[in-house]
Amino acid sequence: MTFIDIIRKKRDGFNLTKDEINYFINQIKTNNVVDYQVSALLMAIFFKGMTFEETANLTEAMVNSGTRVDFEDILTCDKHSTGGVGDKISIPLAPIVASCNIAVPMMSGRGLGHTGGTLDKLESIPGFNVNLTLDEFKSQIKELNLAMIGQTKEIAVADKYLYALRDATCTVESIPLITASIMSKKIAEGTKNLVIDLKVGKGAFMKNVQEAEELAEYLIKVGKLNGVKTTVVLTDMDEPIGKMIGNSLEIIESIELLKGNIKNGDFYELTTYLSALMISKTLSIGFEEAKNKVLESICSKRALDKFKQLILKQNGNPKVLEDYSVFPNAKIKKDIYAKDIFGDFKTKYIKEIDAFQFGLFANSLGAGRNKKEDTIDHSAGIEIFIKIGDLINPNTKILTLFSNKEESIIEVTKKIKDAINLSDSKIIKNSKIIKTIDYDSIK
Amino acid sequence: MTFIDIIRKKRDGFNLTKDEINYFINQIKTNNVVDYQVSALLMAIFFKGMTFEETANLTEAMVNSGTRVDFEDILTCDKHSTGGVGDKISIPLAPIVASCNIAVPMMSGRGLGHTGGTLDKLESIPGFNVNLTLDEFKSQIKELNLAMIGQTKEIAVADKYLYALRDATCTVESIPLITASIMSKKIAEGTKNLVIDLKVGKGAFMKNVQEAEELAEYLIKVGKLNGVKTTVVLTDMDEPIGKMIGNSLEIIESIELLKGNIKNGDFYELTTYLSALMISKTLSIGFEEAKNKVLESICSKRALDKFKQLILKQNGNPKVLEDYSVFPNAKIKKDIYAKDIFGDFKTKYIKEIDAFQFGLFANSLGAGRNKKEDTIDHSAGIEIFIKIGDLINPNTKILTLFSNKEESIIEVTKKIKDAINLSDSKIIKNSKIIKTIDYDSIK
Repeated sequence: MTFIDIIRKKRDGFNLTKDEINYFINQIKTNNVVDYQVSALLMAIFFKGMTFEETANLTEAMVNSGTRVDFEDILTCDKHSTGGVGDKISIPLAPIVASCNIAVPMMSGRGLGHTGGTLDKLESIPGFNVNLTLDEFKSQIKELNLAMIGQTKEIAVADKYLYALRDATCTVESIPLITASIMSKKIAEGTKNLVIDLKVGKGAFMKNVQEAEELAEYLIKVGKLNGVKTTVVLTDMDEPIGKMIGNSLEIIESIELLKGNIKNGDFYELTTYLSALMISKTLSIGFEEAKNKVLESICSKRALDKFKQLILKQNGNPKVLEDYSVFPNAKIKKDIYAKDIFGDFKTKYIKEIDAFQFGLFANSLGAGRNKKEDTIDHSAGIEIFIKIGDLINPNTKILTLFSNKEESIIEVTKKIKDAINLSDSKIIKNSKIIKTIDYDSIK
Repeated sequence: MTFIDIIRKKRDGFNLTKDEINYFINQIKTNNVVDYQVSALLMAIFFKGMTFEETANLTEAMVNSGTRVDFEDILTCDKHSTGGVGDKISIPLAPIVASCNIAVPMMSGRGLGHTGGTLDKLESIPGFNVNLTLDEFKSQIKELNLAMIGQTKEIAVADKYLYALRDATCTVESIPLITASIMSKKIAEGTKNLVIDLKVGKGAFMKNVQEAEELAEYLIKVGKLNGVKTTVVLTDMDEPIGKMIGNSLEIIESIELLKGNIKNGDFYELTTYLSALMISKTLSIGFEEAKNKVLESICSKRALDKFKQLILKQNGNPKVLEDYSVFPNAKIKKDIYAKDIFGDFKTKYIKEIDAFQFGLFANSLGAGRNKKEDTIDHSAGIEIFIKIGDLINPNTKILTLFSNKEESIIEVTKKIKDAINLSDSKIIKNSKIIKTIDYDSIK
């Protein structure tokens, strides 16, 4: 068997055998293949796809390229999001679920392009350390039911390599490759239950529900074949989630939710829904009972306390919970009113807030990265005072921009107009939850 | 513009602009792109194709990645073959055409896998130097009307890189990429007329006539847009050409043709047809008149003399023309009779001689390469005493194997049975020339 035979076979539309897939991943693991052959194979997979069986074999090979953690009889559940704008849901969700006697062994990623990353957000808490060893991770899970860290070097070794290569070769948006990447990491980190927040719409990989359903089926089946009970929730990613985009801003918004100060809106709706789903699936209890546990955990401040324990345990400064000035602060804060952007009008409804564009705006204010090597400004970002369906007039404050770069503020201000669409007629606010695809519904 | 934008655009099926194609080739030329991004783009081109316009722009960019030779008002014509087994046609053809007052500025390649290469064949002549500088090449063309060399470093710089990468990434069989690779080299070497021998059948890139016609149209159109009058001849590549496969063996067969000792069969038919076509197109004379020039050039030994001048000029030993023992000699020569392979039978017709398999046999006897770095044995090869349609009996000598490796002789002997098909009923011998697609027939 040679690597080129495997490229040719997939290029010509044939299914790869388990042996061929193991060879492919093993050549990566042992550093016996050149990048340009792997990228050619990735592009062939992009075009020709992979069956469930091939995808399950690929996932398993990627898990086996590193260590698979086993938490034995500890109840575990994790959540994964396919990446959104303003998507800080993991921050309050993980302590909520952990405070309900379920271990949350969460390994997350960093932001790139228009999407933010949980690790970057956590690192806006002064001192917070996301780089635990695998042993530290395991013992913290046993002690605290909760750890929020970066993928350790032992986890899904081949995925790290493939993920970077896919990013550089336009082979990210492939259902089997997305499935294997997500599931190999989650299977390897040791969770036995998984809820996936699959974003659909502009600014998401999956542009429509049909594509998203296909991916959901792959994710659930591959989870099933590897002992991870997976539930997929399709959620709408047309406008940024909540009101904040940016690292410390999103942590502040998360703390506000844990304090009970946010009681409605998409961020609240999604966080409580996904948390309840995790609890319901893991404890095998009804959704309403699980939802009550979530509300009780917030109301009693047990979730906030769990978050405080997490910050302490991972060397962060817990004062951020009481005093937001402990976070890095942006030098420039610019308020933007509707009239600044849209001139004079009577009243209008917000029809569209382009999540993708807003992700890029936050990025250019300093909150994100264009290349992996870029450093980020934890204080930068955008506070958004409007949501789709809101009625505004020229004096409505719509945004505050936070940055340390005057020129970026000017540049973003110029572009905002194209990222917000107004309407004269009323716009109905829909739930962000499109559909939940249950583990049991997929044979 | 970034390279990844170009990959995405092609991946999603859009046409690349001239600027984008120039950027792509320029990034290669200036060493500003990583191999894995180029191979991803090549695979996307493999799947999504390129229009004539894109292909012409790609070819032009590849020509401009190096030097373009200009022979001004010298009449020039070259021949290119897409690669066959036993395909020594260039060896006698180039001196035939050059002896008819047409300059033949021929830059050729080396063999790989089942196909041989003109350079390797020429190097079986002791001392023969295929590595002229571009200046030496130009002055030899002016002096002798003939040079047969390897592509110099200045010619189509980007093609060398792309060709190697395509070979390693299964992106060879793409009509626009084949077109740009062939035509960029031929345009750059300075020929104004070109005849392409496009092989069709087993052991050829083009498996059927329809595909070959599509490639022919690309080749002719791209030639037209770049000032090279191109005629494409589709020829059948189902059995090896002529009777010899192997480097010195094919030179010997070529000398025999130039001496007038071979007067029929596919090798003779193809060589005289393609030579006459080159002369007819370049001098704008009728095909029959051109054919007479070819026959006269062979009969008068002017072509043989031109070949002798070429050998002398490029430091080869001209004694090979008179004494074939000057060539390297294989230690083992094994005759194979029909009964050795097929046991006892009365008489049968030869139905099939698998050119691809025979190419691999010659390779494993030492005549070819599996990797570019492999050295080759100029003495190794196969003499084939049968052609499709021949009637044989058990005592017919069918092959002689030449090698210095006993174990390869044994291995090949075992496999021959599967590469020759016999028939009880008569087989009609067809002309190897399927179709000639004229420059003027393509708008």
